[in-house]
This record gives sequence, C-alpha cells and structure tokens, in this order.
Amino acid sequence: MEGHHRKDEGRAEASILVVGTGAIGGFYGARLAQAGARVSVVARSDHDRIRAGGIHVQSEGGDVHFEPRQVLRSARECDGPPDIVLVATKVIPGADTADLVQGAVGPGTSILLIQNGIDIEEPVSRAFPETEILSGLAFIAANRVGPGRILHLDYGRLTLGRYPSGPSRKAEMICSLLESVGVPCLVTEDVVTARWQKLVWNAPFNPISVLAGGVDTQAILGSEELTRVARAVMEEVCRLAAAVQHPLSSDVIDQNIDGTRAMKPYKTSMLLDYENGRPMEVEAILGNAVRLARSNGVPAPHLETLYALLHLVNLKGDIERHHRSMGRQD
Amino acid sequence: MEGHHRKDEGRAEASILVVGTGAIGGFYGARLAQAGARVSVVARSDHDRIRAGGIHVQSEGGDVHFEPRQVLRSARECDGPPDIVLVATKVIPGADTADLVQGAVGPGTSILLIQNGIDIEEPVSRAFPETEILSGLAFIAANRVGPGRILHLDYGRLTLGRYPSGPSRKAEMICSLLESVGVPCLVTEDVVTARWQKLVWNAPFNPISVLAGGVDTQAILGSEELTRVARAVMEEVCRLAAAVQHPLSSDVIDQNIDGTRAMKPYKTSMLLDYENGRPMEVEAILGNAVRLARSNGVPAPHLETLYALLHLVNLKGDIERHHRSMGRQD
Repeated sequence: MEGHHRKDEGRAEASILVVGTGAIGGFYGARLAQAGARVSVVARSDHDRIRAGGIHVQSEGGDVHFEPRQVLRSARECDGPPDIVLVATKVIPGADTADLVQGAVGPGTSILLIQNGIDIEEPVSRAFPETEILSGLAFIAANRVGPGRILHLDYGRLTLGRYPSGPSRKAEMICSLLESVGVPCLVTEDVVTARWQKLVWNAPFNPISVLAGGVDTQAILGSEELTRVARAVMEEVCRLAAAVQHPLSSDVIDQNIDGTRAMKPYKTSMLLDYENGRPMEVEAILGNAVRLARSNGVPAPHLETLYALLHLVNLKGDIERHHRSMGRQD
Repeated sequence: MEGHHRKDEGRAEASILVVGTGAIGGFYGARLAQAGARVSVVARSDHDRIRAGGIHVQSEGGDVHFEPRQVLRSARECDGPPDIVLVATKVIPGADTADLVQGAVGPGTSILLIQNGIDIEEPVSRAFPETEILSGLAFIAANRVGPGRILHLDYGRLTLGRYPSGPSRKAEMICSLLESVGVPCLVTEDVVTARWQKLVWNAPFNPISVLAGGVDTQAILGSEELTRVARAVMEEVCRLAAAVQHPLSSDVIDQNIDGTRAMKPYKTSMLLDYENGRPMEVEAILGNAVRLARSNGVPAPHLETLYALLHLVNLKGDIERHHRSMGRQD
C-alpha cells in the first residue's frame, strides 16, 4: 500500500497528520484543512477539548474553525500512514520527535518538521533513513491561548524544503495548498541555508530578550551595548554557517537589524515561554549552534555566553516546573 | 591647620570620617572605633536612627556597638578635616564620590576608598590632585540588615595601599588599628594590581549570579558551561590587566575557581542588590573594564556580553525604582 493519497487524485485529498496542536500545529493544520486536505491531529494535553470542539484560529484576516478528521492521542493510533506527518512540537530535551511520529510513517509518507533551531532534523533523519524529511520554518506571530484556541497575531509565511537539500513534490504540494488559502509559502531546495538565515535572528534576539530582564526587540535595539552584542552573535552565526558550507549573503546582518528596527516591538517566543513558565528551546536554538562551533573550531564567545546563562535559567525552570507538578509550593 | 591629629600623639587619636554607613562603612568604622580611633560618620538615609542608637555590628566573633563621635548628614558639616576620609559608598552612576567628601578634605587628609570595581579612583584623584588617595578592597561577607544594623557573616580582610602605587603611612596606620582588634589587613604598594586580582573573581561571578536566574557560586560552578564562561571572563581580565601593565600571576584563574569551589555557596553582592531591588555596581565592575578593553584594543567578548545584558537589567531596575518612588504600582 502506498498510502491513501495518489497524486493524480489531486491535492484536495492529501492526507496530513499534524503532531502537536500548539500555535504552529493549530494554525497550519487549520489552514491546510481549509485548503481541502484531510487533516488529523495528535493532541496530548488538549486532546479532550479538541475532540469535543475542534481547533479555533482567531485572526484579523478572518477566523478559521477546524474539525480534524481524527483526534488521536498518539501517532500509533493512526489508521493508515498519511502522505505527510507534520510535526509542530517544541524541540526540548526529553521530547523525542522520532518517537512521536512512530507508527504513522509508511513507505509513501514524508515527515515535515516545522520547528525552531538548527540541526534539528538529524535525529529524525537517522531514525527514518528511507523517509523523505521536509524541513519547515514558520515566520509567524501566533500564540496558543487555550486548549484548541490559537490567536494569530501577524505574519504566517512558511519556508520549506527537502532535507538536507533538493526538490520535493510534497513540499510543492504543501505550498500550493497554503497559497490557495492565502498563506504565503516558499519552497527552497536549500532549506539548511534557510535555517541558518533564520538563526541569524533567533540566536541573538531570543536569548537576549530573556536574559536582559524580559525585554522586547525595540528595547534591545534601544541599547547600544546590546545591539553591539546582537551584531556580534550574528557575525558568529554567519562564520559558523560558512564553516559548515552554508554561507549567507554579506548583508544579512544589516538586513536583520534594520528589519527588526522597522518591526513593531516584538516579544520573542523564548520570552513568551519564559514568562509563561514553559521550557525554552535553548538546545535547538543555541546549544546545537555552540556544539557545531566547537566541533568546527569556530570561535563563538558571545553565543557561548548566552547559551551558558540560558541553560541554567532553563534548568531552574525545570526544577520549578517539577516542584509545581509535585504539588510543592516552595 | 594640619588637622587635629598629629602622628606623634599616637594612633589612638587618629580621626576618621566614614562616609556611607552600609555594611562596609559600618563594619570598618565600628572596628576602627573599637581600636581607639575617633570615628565620625556621614549617614544619609539612616541618619536619624544612627544618631539615636549608633551602629550595631552583629558577628560570630562577638558583637560591636559603635557610637560615632559625630553623625553628620554631609561631609560639609565636618568640624575640621580628619586624618582620613573613609568612603564606603556604592559606585553607581549619579553617586559622585568627589562631591560626597567635599568639605572634609584638609591638607593633611587622606581619602580611603573601600569600594568595588576597577578604575574607580580616577574621578576622586582628578578632583583632589594634591590629596593622598588610598584604595582599599574588602574581602568580607556582611549585609546591612536595617538602619545602623550590620550582620557580619564571614571574612573581613582589608587590602589597601596608596593609589596608584607606593608606600603610605596612613595605610600602615589603618592596618595597625584593624589588626589591633583582630581584623586581618594587608598594605600593598601596588593596589591597582590588587584591584585587578579582585576583578578576576568579581567580573565573572557577580554578573553570572544575576543573569543565570539568581544563583549562588556553587550553582555556577555546578554548570560545566558556566564554569567555562567564568574561566573565559577571567582570561579576558588577565589579558586586560597585562595590557595596562598590571600582569597577574599565571595561576590566578585556577586559584579563583578552586578557591570558590572550596567556599560555602555564596551569594554575590550584585545578586543581593538585585534581589533587594537596589542598583548594581555594573559600571564599576564591568563597564570600566569593557571600556578599558576597547581603548586598549583587548578583545573581551564574554565580558562585553555580560555587561550589555546587565546594563539593561540595571536600567529596568532604575525605572522600577523610579516608579516606586513616584508612588506608582504598575
């Protein structure tokens, strides 16, 4: 069996299993369903609420209500492998992406990872050596405001492509579906370079926003000293990208600084996670970059400092979450 | 008039004006009075309580109650210049040390600065070019726990010497007085090098303790990543010290790491300031070092990152303090 979708049946019947029903999974799942795909979801903590009421995406451009075809507790409950398993979970230690999709990956299935960070495809690629891995980057401001409730604030563009490189019909299909409902989408044949480009922004702004006391992008760029550090981190990311054969264009730093100055004040996802007592994606965004820097002999002192500090902040958060979950209030 | 003290009258009659009645001023003022010096104090926020009840230093080694000869609101109220003006205020922007001692400095007066940081003597030295400046470093764990109430927890050694270098009879006198009451003291003819040595510890541990989420020395050294950053900061301080002609011994980093591991878990002064909503000595400890690094062309990326982050954390604190002082609760 090749999966229940055949490309000549038309894209409307593409079957997609969305794993993770936070802001990213909820938003793209809802829009793909709106475009006509058959979308099921794996929801854990929000399972019962989503099974009862579906997923609601509130957006200035119009609200979308999304009733998944199936609401599962685990990908293992899947009644036949879909065309695409779309993974939209956070990349944090203990969350094993390969395990999360286990049971839903057939010979015709592609795995699409819409996740933050660098080098996050490696574990999945190792676990499914025969499977097409697609890597996606969401440029979106959206928050999960309750179980099955997503507030879409701004942007929404998805960049995706085959990992590590090359063309992909499935990537094109996702792109057509999203564009058919007005979500901008870009297919790239060099998605790893696209990840490095995104890291140029994420690596400085995410950690600084937390470590400098909980500040938005404008407060960071209002400080001459912090702007200097942000630029230095970006330079380290560029040197590192070049060292691993993904050189970025020389104006990427100015573009990121100027572009961010032109944006509304923006709270990073790491700051939102921190403020809401959730684990931050420290390893995916910073730890992997620092380890690559070390193994490639690229100096990255600013990045290392941010990583070391945030690593302990995250660890403290883990301990507090553990105490809360044990019912302790100390 | 040469001041009311003549050295041939014996050290018991040394006259000392202590400016600042926090932990440092309170502790050393009390012990110098105990040793027989005639000690007056300038106290601002705690003025009335200290005038009424003196200063009480609680210590495992025995409590000391200290009734200052005079309790002034300003050095300008001084009834004749003392032998020594001992300044024990924090070094924060807006606190002008030269202005604080104005009016109390006669031709025979020396100014002793027991303060944190590097290059903190410069403004006072420029304002009083004819006056002997003594520079002092307190190795002490002590907190002001209320107006005129000091809790002495551990240590207490004072290192002092003439700024920028050379011998000093006044430094010897202070040393004899303190040692006569059991407070260890060391006179150095190269106090600037001693400041660099102390900065080797202060520059990493103070900022990291705040930025990593409010952690003590053992938590920092329990993290491999943060220990690496602490060492890197120490290396930058050593390179900087060498560049400004105050080379430190090659084993100073290992000594500081190993010595700190052997200590009880210790909360830095910056962390105590942060937790209590007080301004941190970011400029004296980090800003001056970063500026020296830049003007001397010494790379200091780890130090710069810590400085930039803490600078904004401090600024946020300033704004919050301002709002509190305006009676706002937002």
